[in-house]
Amino acid sequence: MKYSSDAVEKAIHELSKLPGIGRKTAQRHVFYLLKQTEHEVHQLAEALLELKSKVIHCHTCFNITETDPCRICSSDKRDRSIICVVEEANDVLALEKTGEYRGLYHVLGGALSPLDGIGPDDLRIKELLNRLDGVNEIIVATNPNTEGEATAIYLSKLIKPMGVKMTRIARGIPVGADLEYTDEITLARAIEGRLEY
Amino acid sequence: MKYSSDAVEKAIHELSKLPGIGRKTAQRHVFYLLKQTEHEVHQLAEALLELKSKVIHCHTCFNITETDPCRICSSDKRDRSIICVVEEANDVLALEKTGEYRGLYHVLGGALSPLDGIGPDDLRIKELLNRLDGVNEIIVATNPNTEGEATAIYLSKLIKPMGVKMTRIARGIPVGADLEYTDEITLARAIEGRLEY
Repeated sequence: MKYSSDAVEKAIHELSKLPGIGRKTAQRHVFYLLKQTEHEVHQLAEALLELKSKVIHCHTCFNITETDPCRICSSDKRDRSIICVVEEANDVLALEKTGEYRGLYHVLGGALSPLDGIGPDDLRIKELLNRLDGVNEIIVATNPNTEGEATAIYLSKLIKPMGVKMTRIARGIPVGADLEYTDEITLARAIEGRLEY
Repeated sequence: MKYSSDAVEKAIHELSKLPGIGRKTAQRHVFYLLKQTEHEVHQLAEALLELKSKVIHCHTCFNITETDPCRICSSDKRDRSIICVVEEANDVLALEKTGEYRGLYHVLGGALSPLDGIGPDDLRIKELLNRLDGVNEIIVATNPNTEGEATAIYLSKLIKPMGVKMTRIARGIPVGADLEYTDEITLARAIEGRLEY
């Protein structure tokens, strides 16, 4: 397919690399951008460049940040005796949005997945072990799928013998869901993890 | 909501301006980009900047182009006696993809829409009238909605008296569709525009 402009073709090609963006959507974005002022397109391009130039990983928790240590690790309002272990930096965002958790985080950078060749050495587990001084509890908030569960079990077997309390976020039926349409594994977990009034 | 990085927040804000991209999708894109190499993000940003610096409008047909006149207007393989009138530059792309049409184009830059304050002077109608020399037929390929139809009727009333054949692209049931689920107006148009074997 030959377009009337190589620049348009190139922009479509680059945009369609983004997750969930196909050629048609990329084309729509390009035509939208062509109608915007030069200033607005510059702002978008600059914001993308700044992502790479400004955003780094915190060397303590490996969350994304612009300062090292990050705002959470350097805050004196956070409970330093609890670490919540997550797979990716966006999980930190999701948990922070709840406003419920006031402890620290640790971003593993993925989950154990032997089939994809991801073993313990590919995750930031060693770095987690180095942070255990003064920590009373580790909440494992990896995803509730096979890889996430395997990682949670691995971490608990590794760290529990060191005398640190290991907990796992509750799995159960999501708020607003229908019992009828909930899969049996989730339902079994919901009964298993029932709480007393 | 306070994110851990202003650069991340800014990139999410800028990306969510794109059509059909909400905050969640923008966030997903940002985390994807953070995992890419600096080179790849640079390529995307540059492609977007090039869009504004290189892409111009052809002064004959007002299609997007990098050369003026555009490749279609300057090609000696196109039939210069037919002009296909479309609303936007992306309509040219859609028609070119069919490989069926070998004439020239004219991009109006929209359709008549009194409710939105878009009258004949806001479209490139005067520029179309200046191109009628040596033209035998004008195919009106505006969208088959109220504004597109109004524009088509306006153009036909304006240009037909000048002795140019005015045609409208066929409206009917799309290939692969079901008669049962086709709306009555489309079906009426399909019967009206029936062709003899």
